[in-house]
Amino acid sequence: MIYPKDFEELLESFKLLPGIGEKSAERFIFSLVDIDDKEIEKFSQNLVNFKKNIKPCKTCGHLTDKEECNICSDNKRDKSVICVVQDVKSVFTFEKAGNYKGMYHVLGGLISPIDDINPEDINIANLINKRLNDVVKEVIIALNPSIEGETTSLYIQKLLETKNIKVSRLSYGIPMGSDIEYLDPLMIIKALEDRKYIS
Amino acid sequence: MIYPKDFEELLESFKLLPGIGEKSAERFIFSLVDIDDKEIEKFSQNLVNFKKNIKPCKTCGHLTDKEECNICSDNKRDKSVICVVQDVKSVFTFEKAGNYKGMYHVLGGLISPIDDINPEDINIANLINKRLNDVVKEVIIALNPSIEGETTSLYIQKLLETKNIKVSRLSYGIPMGSDIEYLDPLMIIKALEDRKYIS
Repeated sequence: MIYPKDFEELLESFKLLPGIGEKSAERFIFSLVDIDDKEIEKFSQNLVNFKKNIKPCKTCGHLTDKEECNICSDNKRDKSVICVVQDVKSVFTFEKAGNYKGMYHVLGGLISPIDDINPEDINIANLINKRLNDVVKEVIIALNPSIEGETTSLYIQKLLETKNIKVSRLSYGIPMGSDIEYLDPLMIIKALEDRKYIS
Repeated sequence: MIYPKDFEELLESFKLLPGIGEKSAERFIFSLVDIDDKEIEKFSQNLVNFKKNIKPCKTCGHLTDKEECNICSDNKRDKSVICVVQDVKSVFTFEKAGNYKGMYHVLGGLISPIDDINPEDINIANLINKRLNDVVKEVIIALNPSIEGETTSLYIQKLLETKNIKVSRLSYGIPMGSDIEYLDPLMIIKALEDRKYIS
């Protein structure tokens, strides 16, 4: 046993984090030696508090420390649009971009038969059964442009067909700041399909 | 405020770790959502335990959960050799390599006038005044081959000159598995200087 016991145990804890192996965990621990005791106690407390207090919003599935998240309970937001996203990371990404003022619905995954993830394993039923009241006019599907994303998108589209609700998806296209010369042919095809008439 | 409060506070804690910025801290936190509550409690407890129980060994300065570290208190180790290293990371590196069976002395830094680190700021006095008893026959200086390492090495060498103790340093040379064609000229010079007679 090279490390003292408490060192070894903390090492194992750090290794739970994504992308953190032995070397990085060691580096983290060595850095703790120079960090103030109080900061470490706060770190320790913050971990427990996060796990205890942060839960999925009962309406949209986003992370929150209340029953309902800040977005769902914000009366200034546009309740007529719901943006369907894969996970809470997407919500944060959209919120950081800042110009979307509608609601969200977090699926918590994508349909993927190969991984045995079926429609009932993700949060689709709630979207269809509970959230589509008379106020909702549009559902924006904002999933990754992957096979799983497309499958899930199609599935939701089918379910919404009979309802009197507009369904849209994010536009595909050339990324801002890119050079057309170096783009994937598929991206060119998508950008042509999604072209926007400007006059 | 995009994040819930407990999220934000944990984010700040993770950002204390070396090399961890906003994005990585976020990624860590999202991963916690899927980790078992018990594991997080253990993580939290491990942080506090580490900080509370792990202290520098009163003899050599290595990290330990006792008064004296496992190495200093191990009677099977060779007390006649002391290996002087920059920090505890070096001790772990040497112990992982595994064939060194002597003692260590951790300086906790290197002399660096430019950063205002003087000999009295690092753990040299203890080495000279407390550790060099009659049993000690050799001091191995194992510091990084940098300007600071060389300076510190020379300083310690001077202090040991008058004592009846052998002083050695790690050999410089070509790294195992390297290709001589691509080596630094300085490395070739060092490897020639430190050449070993084999017959």
